[in-house]
Amino acid sequence: MRLVTYEVQTVLGPFRRVGVWRDDETIVDANFVVAEYLRRTHHGEDAYREADFLAPVEMISFIAGGERTLQTVREALALVLPTQEQQGAKGEQLVFQREHVRLCAPIPRPRRIHDFMVVEEHVLNSLKNIPVEWYNMPVCYKGNPDAVIGPDETVGWPRYTQKLDYELEQCAIIGRRGKDISAAEAEKYIYGYSIFNDFSARDIQMREMSVGLGPFKGKDFATAIGPCLATADEFDALHAQMTLRVNGEEWSAGTIGRMRFSFAQIIEYLSNEEEIFPGDVLGSGTVGRGCGLELERWIAPGDLVEAEVEGIGVLANRIGNRA
Amino acid sequence: MRLVTYEVQTVLGPFRRVGVWRDDETIVDANFVVAEYLRRTHHGEDAYREADFLAPVEMISFIAGGERTLQTVREALALVLPTQEQQGAKGEQLVFQREHVRLCAPIPRPRRIHDFMVVEEHVLNSLKNIPVEWYNMPVCYKGNPDAVIGPDETVGWPRYTQKLDYELEQCAIIGRRGKDISAAEAEKYIYGYSIFNDFSARDIQMREMSVGLGPFKGKDFATAIGPCLATADEFDALHAQMTLRVNGEEWSAGTIGRMRFSFAQIIEYLSNEEEIFPGDVLGSGTVGRGCGLELERWIAPGDLVEAEVEGIGVLANRIGNRA
Repeated sequence: MRLVTYEVQTVLGPFRRVGVWRDDETIVDANFVVAEYLRRTHHGEDAYREADFLAPVEMISFIAGGERTLQTVREALALVLPTQEQQGAKGEQLVFQREHVRLCAPIPRPRRIHDFMVVEEHVLNSLKNIPVEWYNMPVCYKGNPDAVIGPDETVGWPRYTQKLDYELEQCAIIGRRGKDISAAEAEKYIYGYSIFNDFSARDIQMREMSVGLGPFKGKDFATAIGPCLATADEFDALHAQMTLRVNGEEWSAGTIGRMRFSFAQIIEYLSNEEEIFPGDVLGSGTVGRGCGLELERWIAPGDLVEAEVEGIGVLANRIGNRA
Repeated sequence: MRLVTYEVQTVLGPFRRVGVWRDDETIVDANFVVAEYLRRTHHGEDAYREADFLAPVEMISFIAGGERTLQTVREALALVLPTQEQQGAKGEQLVFQREHVRLCAPIPRPRRIHDFMVVEEHVLNSLKNIPVEWYNMPVCYKGNPDAVIGPDETVGWPRYTQKLDYELEQCAIIGRRGKDISAAEAEKYIYGYSIFNDFSARDIQMREMSVGLGPFKGKDFATAIGPCLATADEFDALHAQMTLRVNGEEWSAGTIGRMRFSFAQIIEYLSNEEEIFPGDVLGSGTVGRGCGLELERWIAPGDLVEAEVEGIGVLANRIGNRA
């Protein structure tokens, strides 16, 4: 299932809700379709209250509902077959055209972001010499959950950089709370995947990294995630074709197939002595030749950056003007 | 004012609430004393609802209330003068003995943690050669908000380290949302201060840092904050004497007086193109000779680590056994 957080404007202002992205043009409201399903089957007046429990309108709560929530939504979609014109019992709209709503990042404010770096070609191209420890353990920097942007949002050009860059990545999204998880068990903790593009200010990033504590201003101004979350049962992370276009021209392409550490191994390492939570975002790291730094090509104000991953969609962001 | 988050056991299970740490032995419930004050003065039946707004029971909401909340609590304390025996109109207890409650980290789950490193002596002792960029800009790693522990909590010895260490630091706590804040304005954004001890697994930390993205497993298992939050009006961060004792013996002592960048400068740098929020925690970095790494002395299972800062109190944590 492809899940989105969509924002719809009403006379009471904007509301954000979880939707099922059935095809590129239509979004079914997950909570409303479940309420309609429960009302029709056997729950009468309590249907809306039960739907709020079974299919929460906020994505992290929805994710925490796990397989039970997904299965309820699947059953509801199969029975209700909602159409554009259809309304629920209280007059609520069940289906929205994409053009009438705004897609947000599927998790607008993740609990935490760990962005790993596990594709050798990217590390080789970026750092020239690969530090020996890179082969021994997955490393990451921690992202800024308050700088997440969604599809079609503009990336403000940070006044402190001359070298703005993109990164073509996937991210795994954690579905269950856990600690000390073995790699063999770890797949069960992956709820789904999305496209991850942590825009980077390379000049300041490299200066920061020279001190040893990792990047922060070089990364923390804009991290694009979206356009949807593809659940793990319907998405093949390792083989999905990934491309990045700038103003329609392909700059980067590849897969994350050759990860030094799999997401399962990353989860084993990360959860050692430490809890992980539903809504945690784990970036894969950039694919080989998946950023301008590796290509010695640089994006400019006004450019349209589109990251596409087969099975997820297109994550498009326009670059803003320099201040 | 010294503020705490305290946990009290009831027949309905444990509750966490904001308290005013009047002296080392007594804690006044901030919300209840404000309700009692409002009830006595002019608000009658609505006093409890208004108190929930003016003096929220959860610390980040309390902080977001800013000076208005603090002033209301001050007035309430002056008028009500609560005593140990005193109850509010509904039978709620206004004052607790410290031994009857548990102090938590003042912000049990901070929104975000940035731990800076701005004391030269520590950097010199830890890294031997100071990278040139350290002098040009404040650098930090981002901590794990889900690994915060409070006073008297045991630090589990991570199975992956042989070199567990402490760090004697202060942290500033942000009180207002903002972006692009000048250093001249930045003091207004500091709500208060606490003691910050990010326990570190030095062996894994150094291996991680060798790859360039900074530490994560080396830091993310336990970060102690507490015992209280001292509001900025009553605390002198630069001159407060700081000490750290292991099993009663002084290992480290100093002040953060010689910061390469002040908290105000750090806030200017951090908030450039990026929002900061109430409840954000900014570590100062370790004071000179403020960790075992600098002293070539190492804590052991069973040790009692006490970080003390004049005007804040003692943050004591016992080290657990090896698994």
